[in-house]
Amino acid sequence: MNQTKHLTAGIIIIGNEILSGRTQDVNIAHIAQKLNALGVHVREARVIPDAEDVIVDTVRQFHKAYDYVFTTGGIGSTHDDITAESISKAFHRDVEFNKEVVAVMVKICGTDDLSEGRLNMARMPVGAKLIHNPVTSIPGFQIENVFVMAGIPEVMRGMLDYALENVIPGHPILSVAIHCYLAEGDLAPGLRDIQNQNPEVEIGSYPFWRLGKWGATAVVRGQDKTSIDNTASLIRELMQSLGGVPQDEFEY
Amino acid sequence: MNQTKHLTAGIIIIGNEILSGRTQDVNIAHIAQKLNALGVHVREARVIPDAEDVIVDTVRQFHKAYDYVFTTGGIGSTHDDITAESISKAFHRDVEFNKEVVAVMVKICGTDDLSEGRLNMARMPVGAKLIHNPVTSIPGFQIENVFVMAGIPEVMRGMLDYALENVIPGHPILSVAIHCYLAEGDLAPGLRDIQNQNPEVEIGSYPFWRLGKWGATAVVRGQDKTSIDNTASLIRELMQSLGGVPQDEFEY
Repeated sequence: MNQTKHLTAGIIIIGNEILSGRTQDVNIAHIAQKLNALGVHVREARVIPDAEDVIVDTVRQFHKAYDYVFTTGGIGSTHDDITAESISKAFHRDVEFNKEVVAVMVKICGTDDLSEGRLNMARMPVGAKLIHNPVTSIPGFQIENVFVMAGIPEVMRGMLDYALENVIPGHPILSVAIHCYLAEGDLAPGLRDIQNQNPEVEIGSYPFWRLGKWGATAVVRGQDKTSIDNTASLIRELMQSLGGVPQDEFEY
Repeated sequence: MNQTKHLTAGIIIIGNEILSGRTQDVNIAHIAQKLNALGVHVREARVIPDAEDVIVDTVRQFHKAYDYVFTTGGIGSTHDDITAESISKAFHRDVEFNKEVVAVMVKICGTDDLSEGRLNMARMPVGAKLIHNPVTSIPGFQIENVFVMAGIPEVMRGMLDYALENVIPGHPILSVAIHCYLAEGDLAPGLRDIQNQNPEVEIGSYPFWRLGKWGATAVVRGQDKTSIDNTASLIRELMQSLGGVPQDEFEY
């Protein structure tokens, strides 16, 4: 809808455990919220298996398609953690034991406990820039526009805050949500007219079931506060004209 | 790892609200669990925006790449619900008001309340087969190997149970999980050896943080119960040899 050039991002979730349904992903939503607040639009998120060819292809595609790419998962110490090697291959770079990371590990474990498995976490593409990990100390890394982070949500969140220091913010994306207990189908024609008359904002509509009743939430998103507020007012008027009571907050 | 031809599936989550982080997706995990239980491997899940060209491209790719495709979202009544039209385009079919669905709506709303918005939910590709919706009555649809369902999790789950009646089960995928309070890095070399010696199963390893300690869960997946049990025994022995106590259930 909006003609402005947006900064864009893609998210790649690497992990068989998400695709088997064993683990509920919560990283997409968290990364998306943080990027949204910085004015970076997430255009796509993909969940892919721990398979080298798929990781290589997806990273190459996303690297070209989006301004920023965020990956989570597959950077631990075991045989199924192949993200670092795969991303090195995607960028035609060699893999090395990153000296800074090895130094961090020696500090934590001492040299005696530096097992083959632990050292695996120090393997990174040559030239990678480290992403600080405030939770478990072992860093993630950035290579060109790709930020490579852990899969465990608590660890990923810590890394992300550091990764985002290297993201140039876009125009912040603002939004207003308006809820009412009207059937979405009844709002539909009016919402479509308002959308057509206000192409500079994006209107989304989401039905919900609450307090034993169906309702709908209209969300207005854009970069200009005045346009958003004007559009939101039109939507409130529409809801009232249909006998609804527009609410800015849900009542529970 | 496994050389058997697997039945495969791809999941497409359609919705700007997921990509903005406003809504936490829970459909991927639910669909994946159900398919897994039927022996159908989910190879990929994509979250894409409510954008016709992206929906058309993604559906065409998935239709060719996987045995089954499941989509959620974008089949409501408002201007941003463009899934039915986009999927019709992907299959080069016209869109029609499905007579059966219109009949259901007349039954629910009567003809007077059959607004343009509500009727939008009856628009489907010519030749689509309906997917019963036990929650809100308005059906989803199947076209070739693509099952098109609602985005609201409660509604999607109802539809999915009916959709799966048209999925031919594969060999069920079995799994065993073994937990212990050992650092994943210490388990890594042993797990790699066990994986190499048992290529007919797939061993995943997932670190966790619980009760103030780090630990790791090893998951053995495959289609042959004996192989899985034998491999699980080897992993339990590995954990014990490293001073750990293998547990089949987490203690809380």
